Amino acid sequence: MIDRARRPRTQNTSTGRRELQTFTLGELSEKLKGRLEGPDDTVVAKVISGVRSITTAGPNDITFLDNPKHLEPAAASRAGGIVVPVGDIPLPGRALIHVEQPYVAFATLLDLFYARQRESIGVSPAAYVAEGAEIGAETNIYPGAYVAREVRIGDRTDVYPGVYVGDGVHIGSDCVLYPNAMIYHGCQIGDRVIIHAGVVIGADGFGFVQQKSASATEPIVHKKVPQLGIVVIEDDVEIGANSAVDRATLEETRVRRGTKIDNLVQIGHNCRVGHHCLLVAHTAVGGSTTLGNYVTVAGQAGISDHLKVGDRAILGPQAGVVKDVPEGASVIGTPATAGGQGRRAFASFPHVPDLRKRLWKLEKRVAELEGESRGK
Amino acid sequence: MIDRARRPRTQNTSTGRRELQTFTLGELSEKLKGRLEGPDDTVVAKVISGVRSITTAGPNDITFLDNPKHLEPAAASRAGGIVVPVGDIPLPGRALIHVEQPYVAFATLLDLFYARQRESIGVSPAAYVAEGAEIGAETNIYPGAYVAREVRIGDRTDVYPGVYVGDGVHIGSDCVLYPNAMIYHGCQIGDRVIIHAGVVIGADGFGFVQQKSASATEPIVHKKVPQLGIVVIEDDVEIGANSAVDRATLEETRVRRGTKIDNLVQIGHNCRVGHHCLLVAHTAVGGSTTLGNYVTVAGQAGISDHLKVGDRAILGPQAGVVKDVPEGASVIGTPATAGGQGRRAFASFPHVPDLRKRLWKLEKRVAELEGESRGK
Amino acid sequence: MIDRARRPRTQNTSTGRRELQTFTLGELSEKLKGRLEGPDDTVVAKVISGVRSITTAGPNDITFLDNPKHLEPAAASRAGGIVVPVGDIPLPGRALIHVEQPYVAFATLLDLFYARQRESIGVSPAAYVAEGAEIGAETNIYPGAYVAREVRIGDRTDVYPGVYVGDGVHIGSDCVLYPNAMIYHGCQIGDRVIIHAGVVIGADGFGFVQQKSASATEPIVHKKVPQLGIVVIEDDVEIGANSAVDRATLEETRVRRGTKIDNLVQIGHNCRVGHHCLLVAHTAVGGSTTLGNYVTVAGQAGISDHLKVGDRAILGPQAGVVKDVPEGASVIGTPATAGGQGRRAFASFPHVPDLRKRLWKLEKRVAELEGESRGK
Repeated sequence: MIDRARRPRTQNTSTGRRELQTFTLGELSEKLKGRLEGPDDTVVAKVISGVRSITTAGPNDITFLDNPKHLEPAAASRAGGIVVPVGDIPLPGRALIHVEQPYVAFATLLDLFYARQRESIGVSPAAYVAEGAEIGAETNIYPGAYVAREVRIGDRTDVYPGVYVGDGVHIGSDCVLYPNAMIYHGCQIGDRVIIHAGVVIGADGFGFVQQKSASATEPIVHKKVPQLGIVVIEDDVEIGANSAVDRATLEETRVRRGTKIDNLVQIGHNCRVGHHCLLVAHTAVGGSTTLGNYVTVAGQAGISDHLKVGDRAILGPQAGVVKDVPEGASVIGTPATAGGQGRRAFASFPHVPDLRKRLWKLEKRVAELEGESRGK
Repeated sequence: MIDRARRPRTQNTSTGRRELQTFTLGELSEKLKGRLEGPDDTVVAKVISGVRSITTAGPNDITFLDNPKHLEPAAASRAGGIVVPVGDIPLPGRALIHVEQPYVAFATLLDLFYARQRESIGVSPAAYVAEGAEIGAETNIYPGAYVAREVRIGDRTDVYPGVYVGDGVHIGSDCVLYPNAMIYHGCQIGDRVIIHAGVVIGADGFGFVQQKSASATEPIVHKKVPQLGIVVIEDDVEIGANSAVDRATLEETRVRRGTKIDNLVQIGHNCRVGHHCLLVAHTAVGGSTTLGNYVTVAGQAGISDHLKVGDRAILGPQAGVVKDVPEGASVIGTPATAGGQGRRAFASFPHVPDLRKRLWKLEKRVAELEGESRGK
Repeated sequence: MIDRARRPRTQNTSTGRRELQTFTLGELSEKLKGRLEGPDDTVVAKVISGVRSITTAGPNDITFLDNPKHLEPAAASRAGGIVVPVGDIPLPGRALIHVEQPYVAFATLLDLFYARQRESIGVSPAAYVAEGAEIGAETNIYPGAYVAREVRIGDRTDVYPGVYVGDGVHIGSDCVLYPNAMIYHGCQIGDRVIIHAGVVIGADGFGFVQQKSASATEPIVHKKVPQLGIVVIEDDVEIGANSAVDRATLEETRVRRGTKIDNLVQIGHNCRVGHHCLLVAHTAVGGSTTLGNYVTVAGQAGISDHLKVGDRAILGPQAGVVKDVPEGASVIGTPATAGGQGRRAFASFPHVPDLRKRLWKLEKRVAELEGESRGK
């Protein structure tokens, strides 16, 4: 039975524990590069110990107001401080911190208050680390991790239990490799990369050539094309649980800096994924396809192989992309179609039966008219 | 080469071995809460040693008849006993056990005869178990499993090799965590939960905020919103291989009791999945979406984020749900459409080209009529 | 930071290192069963040390020309030798090796030059191998692998870290089980099978029976049907990262020889997948469905349960197959539709809004004609 009451108030927010942090509003304003506005001078020293939503915040919590139109709940909030947009925000008597982007400030506040306290275990004797592997300062290799030959790992990186780091892999600093993440030989991982549990980087691309055989019943067999390339994951990339990025046939599959990939996503061999893209769960990028920068791919969308998707393109949920997508285009449906045409086509789906019915009626009416016309 | 003959008659049906079990028909009738009907009194003591299909069963096997219309194969079966529905079943001379739900009884019989014999290995010295973790009675922690700090695991639970149980995780009794299942810190698992190999519970939700940057070429970066919540998996849930359930941003992602999830399914952060739902392979539930109770989601269906799906709704295969689904609705297609309209729209797909052709012809015919009309 | 220059010239091409191999053109011609044609006799002894594309090859590299029409780049290439099709290829002054299938020869050359050098570590003391497990000659069991009771593994097979091999599993010779691959009890794997990281073979099929319950609020619960069958993977199959093949309810789920399965693919319980099929990423095969031989399934396609797909059928990307597919048929769309009708229906998607608009206009025109007709 699940004991709901059992959930501790001082939650573990990561494998490290959350320590109780406090800051004054003055300190918070400084850290957020904001402007503190309050009813009086004492506000600078007011102590804040948590971040909560506008309705649940108490006198020692800070909260945030993203949309300046929603003043009412903010006015009613018991929060000790409110992060608000720059400009005139009519919340008299409240302690406000004005910032450019309140929601960004919210994320920063969560980090400040509930940041992961990294453990300091170093290289566990219960991990396997090949002789000669270079492990940086303050990097943790947990029990049950496997680090192969000629591996280089930077500083302050966490390599969790069950992680596999193949021969010659290079991993940067400040990375997290969650349990059972697997990096095949030769792949390269940048700095501040987060790889979630069960991710596979660098498995063989799906490359086969049809080889004729002498057998009458099996005239062709699929001969494996050796996959000799690597995968490069640049800085600040995050990859969600159980996703897979295949190694290239000869050169490299590359995911550029800042791109965020959700769970169960497939990136085929030889792909280039631009910087700061978002790929939502279950999307599939076919082999040798190139995504530009700032591309957004919604859930379960698929992109065929050998295509080019331009910068800032947006691919709708379950979109089936079978041809190149221009820069900035927003496509939807299968086959994925751009702009208003795509949106209208997508919206048409429920109306097709009505179309059939109306067409059938019209055919009858036209036949009648033709009869009359002929009858004259 | 695969030696088919090599498959042993006394199969291993689980990581424990199957022991040869026998029961009398009288015992089986009692265990199934059925009514034994036989040609004579000796039937109570008849020994049964296996469960087989109606055509393959021998004199020492029991079989079942789900649909009382299919009497013929049952009459011809060599089975030593037949589980049949309640009521008059004209199978003269046969030993019958009448039960309310024969197929349910079949599942019970499989359990009775071929139940997993759990090993009794306790906490393996080759597992890593943090000091202070509480492990219940008769619970097995296999070699290579990792159990972190402040973990509590109930009784008779199996934690297979490569399983990762993060800090502060609570797991109930009579659970099975198959190899390399991964439970991030703080998540809670109820009783009798089955988590298959490669499942990831509690990885970070896909939450980012667009932060302006000073760079001309990279004007925006995706700043991570810390995911501080947990995942709660209630009693009697089963989760298939390589599926992923993300932790909530602040509160919890919850899967209610009795829900069964297939392989490679994605549940986003902050989702609520009701009790006794069925989610078939490759389905994706977007962040903050709520599924009611007894919802069925067919394979590869996707549900966008922040939606509500009502109780007992049925989502068809590959359905693309982009708006709320009412209680009891059956939807299909993309965008998912309810009832007859949805079914007709789905069925219309192959007929659209015909529609285009007919429309084109009709346009010509109308133009001719117009010409005639004008000509007068 | 990723140091691009850091990528070593002598790459690791697998967990073993790539050794620098050289061959003469004479040797290569013999190995490819080709016919060597050159400007003079010295060509036989020409030393080749690498395989490159036609544009990047240097004097010590071999390259290939698949399409005899593309003579120009071949003529301009600096390659020391060119693999070309049989027949007259007008490349005067060049060393040519004529073969039946140049692209097949290319794959063979990659193997020759860059073949994985298997390590020889034997059974690591840091692996768990149950007493009585039979491990063949030159088979490697890496640290952190788990091999259960009554397992038999053939010769020259690699069992990487974190791999789980359940009770009674049989694995053939020359197989590779990449890190954290998981084979549940009783499953059988043939020879030369490649199972990538995170693959799950033999998890329980998704089988439940609706059992009435006495509860008013939860009138039905999903009772598990024990999954007692196994999975059989025949010779020369390759299965991509994080894919899952479920065990059968009673008998077996079978993937026949030579079939290649991409990443994140789901094969349901009781399925039969024929020989030499190709299943691209994210495809899902429903329970008890049978695929014939040489079937191609494109990415994200789904096949409902209990269907039959005939030999050599081709299922398009994202196809949703809800009824049997005949031998040799090429289907596309949802519901998947065969031949020209399917292709036209697929192509119609963007045109449906135009159809609606034209129909609406036509209705108006017909109404006018009717008015005129009536007015007369």
